[in-house]
Amino acid sequence: MASGRPASGEESLIARYFRPLATDPGAFHLDDDAAALKPDGNDVVVTTDAIVEGVHFLPDDPPDTVARKALRVNLSDLAAKGATPAGFVLTLALRSADEAWLKPFAAALGEDAGYFGCPLLGGDTVSTLGALMVSVTAFGHVPPGKMIHRSGAKAGERVMVTGTIGDAGLGLAILRGGKVHAATDTAARDVLIGRYRVPQPRVAIAEIIRDHASASMDVSDGLAGDLTKLCGVSGVSAAIKLQQIPLSHAARDLVSRGVVGLETLIAGGDDYEILCTIPEERVEAFEAAVQRAGVALSSIGTIVGASAVPKFVDKEGREIALERLSYSHF
Amino acid sequence: MASGRPASGEESLIARYFRPLATDPGAFHLDDDAAALKPDGNDVVVTTDAIVEGVHFLPDDPPDTVARKALRVNLSDLAAKGATPAGFVLTLALRSADEAWLKPFAAALGEDAGYFGCPLLGGDTVSTLGALMVSVTAFGHVPPGKMIHRSGAKAGERVMVTGTIGDAGLGLAILRGGKVHAATDTAARDVLIGRYRVPQPRVAIAEIIRDHASASMDVSDGLAGDLTKLCGVSGVSAAIKLQQIPLSHAARDLVSRGVVGLETLIAGGDDYEILCTIPEERVEAFEAAVQRAGVALSSIGTIVGASAVPKFVDKEGREIALERLSYSHF
Repeated sequence: MASGRPASGEESLIARYFRPLATDPGAFHLDDDAAALKPDGNDVVVTTDAIVEGVHFLPDDPPDTVARKALRVNLSDLAAKGATPAGFVLTLALRSADEAWLKPFAAALGEDAGYFGCPLLGGDTVSTLGALMVSVTAFGHVPPGKMIHRSGAKAGERVMVTGTIGDAGLGLAILRGGKVHAATDTAARDVLIGRYRVPQPRVAIAEIIRDHASASMDVSDGLAGDLTKLCGVSGVSAAIKLQQIPLSHAARDLVSRGVVGLETLIAGGDDYEILCTIPEERVEAFEAAVQRAGVALSSIGTIVGASAVPKFVDKEGREIALERLSYSHF
Repeated sequence: MASGRPASGEESLIARYFRPLATDPGAFHLDDDAAALKPDGNDVVVTTDAIVEGVHFLPDDPPDTVARKALRVNLSDLAAKGATPAGFVLTLALRSADEAWLKPFAAALGEDAGYFGCPLLGGDTVSTLGALMVSVTAFGHVPPGKMIHRSGAKAGERVMVTGTIGDAGLGLAILRGGKVHAATDTAARDVLIGRYRVPQPRVAIAEIIRDHASASMDVSDGLAGDLTKLCGVSGVSAAIKLQQIPLSHAARDLVSRGVVGLETLIAGGDDYEILCTIPEERVEAFEAAVQRAGVALSSIGTIVGASAVPKFVDKEGREIALERLSYSHF
C-alpha cells in the first residue's frame, strides 16, 4: 500500500480512503513499501487473523461492520495476550474498487483505529476473482516476557470469561433464517446480529489480564473448544458449571424455550470474549479491576489437574456430552 | 494459527505442516494466539504483500513455487528497505485442506524460511469459497531510523537496478500462450517462467543498500511505473538510458527479433529486483560491495531535478513514450 503520484486506480483509492488513517509517523503516509515500529523496550506481540466473505462475514453485511470485525478480531487477540494496541497492517482482496463499499469500509476502519488507539501502518490492496478477504496483522506492546500465554493454567485456578457467550452464533443463525430467526423478535435479532457482525474486543482490560491471569485466550471458535485448547497446552483439565456460563437475555430466552441448547451456544464461534484462568488469591482483585473497567465478568469453573477434556456439568451435577467442541475450517 | 490437542482438521494440518517451520522461540510452537518479537534496539520494519490465485500466480502453478513467491515478494521489500529478515506471519485462504498441495507448499516455505533466515512466527488458516490467497506480513530489523525510503532521491544521483528486468512478465506471457510462447524454445521458456514463479529477493545486499542508497524500492509493478513512484515521493525526475536497462539473454533475443518491445518489458511486473539511487561519490564502493555479494547491478541513468515523469531515452537520444507505466489492480 504505497503511492507516489496517484497514477493508477489502486494508488488513488489508497490515497483517498486509507492515507487519512495512517496517522502514525511509522506509517510514512503509506508512501513507502514498509512501515517501521520504533523500539520502546517492550516486546512486540504480533497476531494475524483474516475474515473471508461467506465464511466470517456475509456478502450483504454492511461494509462498515466488515471493517470493524476485521480489526476487532485482532484487537481481541491482543487484549487476551495482555498487549496494548500499537498498530496494524491490512491486506484487502477486492473484486473491484467499488467506492460505495470502500468509503464506509475505510471510514469505519478509521473510527475503530482511532477509538482503540491502533493506527493503520501499511498494507496491500489486491484484486481477487473470488471471495472478498480482509487480513489484518496487528501489533501490541507488553513489557519484556509479559505476554500472557494459553499455557499457564494450573490446577485450582478459577476459569473466568468476559461478557456473554453464544450471541454471535445465534446472530449468524438468524441471518441464515430457520428456527432461531422464527423464534426471535426484531429487538432480539438486532442485538444478536450486532454481536455477530461487530465484536467488542476487551481492549480495556488488556493490562488487567497481564497483571492477574495465568493463562488467557480469546474465545473465537466456541467456548468449549477454546477451553479445551487452553487446557491442552497447559496440561490440565477443567470443571465448568453450565449454569454459570454467562448468557444474554436473548440467548437465555431461546434456551429456556428449548429453541437452542446450551451446548450449541458453547460450541458456537465468534464470541470474541476473553477466557482466562486466575489464581484463587488474585480473583478478588481481578474482579474489582475488571468491574472498574466496565467489563462484565463471570466465574464459570475451576482448573483441575488431569489430562482429560474439560467437563461441563449441569446444575444436577450431570456431565453433558458435546458433539462438536468448536468451529474448524477444515 | 494455534492448536492445543489436534482436535480439528485445521489444527492437525497446522501441527503437521506448519509447526515444524516455527523454529523461533517467539513463535511459541504456534501453540498460542500471538507471537512475540523481542526488542533488540533496532527498528522493526513491517511489510505485507499478498498473492492471489489467478492474479499473482496461476491455478496450476506448483504449490512449492506459490509458497516461495509469497514469502519472497515480502523478503524483496525488506531487502529494498535495507532490513535484515527477522520472521513472518502467514494467512492462508484455502478452498480445502488438500494434502497433496499443502505438503509441498509447507516444505518449500520451510526451506525458504531457513535459507533466508526468516522463521514462521504465526498465522491464520481460513477456508475460502473463491481464489486461493497467501498473505504474508514480514518483519526485518534496521538500526533506529535507518530504513531506506522511496523518498530520498536527489538530483545528480545515479539510478541503479539489480538483476535483469522484464523476465517475469515474459514468463507470464509464455504461461498464457500466444506470441511469446510461440517465439521461445523450451530452455528460454523454463528460465522466464522460473523468473515469474520464483523471484530472487536481494536479501544478500540489504545491508549494502542501507549503507549506500539514498532511496530504494523493489520493482514489483514494472520498472517504469515504480521509478515514477520513487521520483514522485522524492520530488525529482530521472533520465534513463534504455540501452542500459539490464536484460537477460532470453529477453534480449525476443526484443532483437521484434517479438516484444523494450517498453513492454519495463512496464511489466513481478521483477522483484531492487531499484535504488546512489550518491555519485558512493557509486564505486556500492558497486564493489554488491559485486562481492554476487548480485548483478546496472547503472541505468541519473536523477534530475524536475517534477516531470522520468524520461526513457533510446540510444539515438529519442525519448520513448510509455502507454502504461505499471501494473495496477484496479
